[in-house]
Amino acid sequence: MAFYEKEGLKGIEILYESIQFIPDDVLIIGDGKRGDIGNTSQKYAEMLYDEFKFDSATLNPYMGKDSLDPFLAYKSKLNFILTLTSNPGSNDFEKVKLADNSFLYQEVIKKIKLWNVNNNCGLVFGATKKEELLSDIKLFGDLPVLLPGVGAQGGSIEDVVNIFKQNGSSEFLINISRGIIYRSSEEDFADQARVELEAMNEIIASIMSN
Amino acid sequence: MAFYEKEGLKGIEILYESIQFIPDDVLIIGDGKRGDIGNTSQKYAEMLYDEFKFDSATLNPYMGKDSLDPFLAYKSKLNFILTLTSNPGSNDFEKVKLADNSFLYQEVIKKIKLWNVNNNCGLVFGATKKEELLSDIKLFGDLPVLLPGVGAQGGSIEDVVNIFKQNGSSEFLINISRGIIYRSSEEDFADQARVELEAMNEIIASIMSN
Repeated sequence: MAFYEKEGLKGIEILYESIQFIPDDVLIIGDGKRGDIGNTSQKYAEMLYDEFKFDSATLNPYMGKDSLDPFLAYKSKLNFILTLTSNPGSNDFEKVKLADNSFLYQEVIKKIKLWNVNNNCGLVFGATKKEELLSDIKLFGDLPVLLPGVGAQGGSIEDVVNIFKQNGSSEFLINISRGIIYRSSEEDFADQARVELEAMNEIIASIMSN
Repeated sequence: MAFYEKEGLKGIEILYESIQFIPDDVLIIGDGKRGDIGNTSQKYAEMLYDEFKFDSATLNPYMGKDSLDPFLAYKSKLNFILTLTSNPGSNDFEKVKLADNSFLYQEVIKKIKLWNVNNNCGLVFGATKKEELLSDIKLFGDLPVLLPGVGAQGGSIEDVVNIFKQNGSSEFLINISRGIIYRSSEEDFADQARVELEAMNEIIASIMSN
């Protein structure tokens, strides 16, 4: 969302147009990491799900349940809630130790499972956090997992896919943005993006089918 | 931000226009509670501070320091970071107990003070949290405090102002939105908003000058 919003009116126009280009069978995620008091979150949910018609959104859990509820009320949308993110700052608060000796992000995962009464929640977990993914994957239950951090941020697609495969789970979605769209800055950027995308899908398919 | 964004293109146009109407000596806060990986937060910072030219913004600390840094690099802007918010969900994570027996939001306050090297940070603290405000006000140091939650959400302006007065501090800003703009739904809404605003300012001035 930031890259569109940064361009003001023109950016919002391009956002509408970009969404129009995407076929109906492709999941579109509004990666805005929103979260606010209930009254305001309600408007963000209407913005993302009714106005722009995203299929899914990323949400920030800091402000707690009533900040997420307006999104969770959309039963046919998929709400990916931040838990342990891919960036260095995830150590500051997400990995702070709680009184019960767990980490804050683990408490967030526990709460998401409680709040998932409409079966429309997922979680965001950084692909750069291999050790934590290994030890926490059992906590996720049936929640679908969105994994940013492969490519520009340094996460390994093979590592991530192998961990899910070993856990017998295929409920994951690996998000690669810069690694695909910036593969070429020449006129062939669209073709090159497709080449990169197909290579990534091939890696996933090959690991999962072994 | 949500109420503008919800209207799509038209809303963004109205946001630009609204900002034009506000005199230069009034602090304009972009209350978007943004926070993302550094690369993306950079674009949000440019959006809020360069494109819309807000003087200040509210930020969500969940993702840690590098998610705030692009905002903190704007030395002449004021960055209000969420600590204990005014909504019921603040109990879910903000008031979770840490291993050192403090609450998460207190750890956030501590970190904001460390990160305030450009002297451009403030904190958001719910006006509905009177007990916590009383016990934590000594933690704030010199950080300016933005207090939402008076009016529609139930916080008392007298309580809040008295607590700052007793602490010898005047570095606070009380945000009242619905209580002022929705005071009248008739044609006199602008006049009625002014009446309400002046009454609130009178309450503050009277307590602070005693």
